[in-house]
Amino acid sequence: MTPRPAKADFPVSQVRRYLEPGPIVLVSSRWRGQANIMTMGWHTMMEFTPALVGCVISSANHSFRMIRDSGECVINLPTAALTDIVVGIGNTTGAEIDKFAHFGLTAGKAEAVGAPPIAECHAHFECRLYDDALVEKYNFFIFEVVKARAARTPKHPETLHYTGDGVFVVAGKAIDRRKLFRPDMLK
Amino acid sequence: MTPRPAKADFPVSQVRRYLEPGPIVLVSSRWRGQANIMTMGWHTMMEFTPALVGCVISSANHSFRMIRDSGECVINLPTAALTDIVVGIGNTTGAEIDKFAHFGLTAGKAEAVGAPPIAECHAHFECRLYDDALVEKYNFFIFEVVKARAARTPKHPETLHYTGDGVFVVAGKAIDRRKLFRPDMLK
Repeated sequence: MTPRPAKADFPVSQVRRYLEPGPIVLVSSRWRGQANIMTMGWHTMMEFTPALVGCVISSANHSFRMIRDSGECVINLPTAALTDIVVGIGNTTGAEIDKFAHFGLTAGKAEAVGAPPIAECHAHFECRLYDDALVEKYNFFIFEVVKARAARTPKHPETLHYTGDGVFVVAGKAIDRRKLFRPDMLK
Repeated sequence: MTPRPAKADFPVSQVRRYLEPGPIVLVSSRWRGQANIMTMGWHTMMEFTPALVGCVISSANHSFRMIRDSGECVINLPTAALTDIVVGIGNTTGAEIDKFAHFGLTAGKAEAVGAPPIAECHAHFECRLYDDALVEKYNFFIFEVVKARAARTPKHPETLHYTGDGVFVVAGKAIDRRKLFRPDMLK
């Protein structure tokens, strides 16, 4: 059974710590009683406060309508220990299977949204749709992270970063250059 | 002196290989005879063809007006070997110094845009402004990559991924899961 790391509240203004490095994430949603999960590699931080994240969610995904119509999702951060589950989720569709059941994942209970966080992930970010101006043209959703929870350790978990063609690169080794930064660039 | 890796043409439809993993990049620009460089961590792929990249460029940056007014830039991919230069570029302003000269970097000649690629980087992506619909509201630029060049080796260079607070994580170790992918998910 995949471990379910205990999590603590994390300031939404600091979610860049997990999302700015550009990891593959798992996006969970719920709409009309059905829950689903998709992989997502095309996302970017857009603002600290409110904590905005821009995400491309292809309209070919089963999750697209669920997220657009519910106006909510949870962005979950998997570690490299979940690599095969991440690949499996990206290669199946919620139109055919219940991904939580199929991959043995635990649908947790969010605080601010109806979409279920994935308990086996390192962190999760509860999101509400903030701006849909570019959804029609680019499938580009701007979400506000309204609640964040993260495992306390490790501080820099090994994360997966997708290069296409079935290959990920793993990030984890930290390089601290605080001493070279202007004080106003740190926080 | 920092090495300047030899580069070959790279298909613009495949730039996700370098950008989707979410590395810190260096954005170079030129406007009215002045060249400048900024660091950028807030970017995402948005489309394969045309090859679209969405980028947040704060209006507080000296580069903001140069890029908006010229409608062009080059996105350069530095490796971990350039960490201290990346930090230096992010902690200085083109309003006060010539960053190419100050950091000993070589301004190359692009093929499709006036902005100069940085010869010391692993790859560079020549960009034209494609859609400025969200520039005013979010400082969010959508660029089309019109020309790409990359070093042939290493295939997966060590890249820097910023977590905030002066700390980067390094990605490079590759995990190949091609065998687990549906054929239509590979390319």
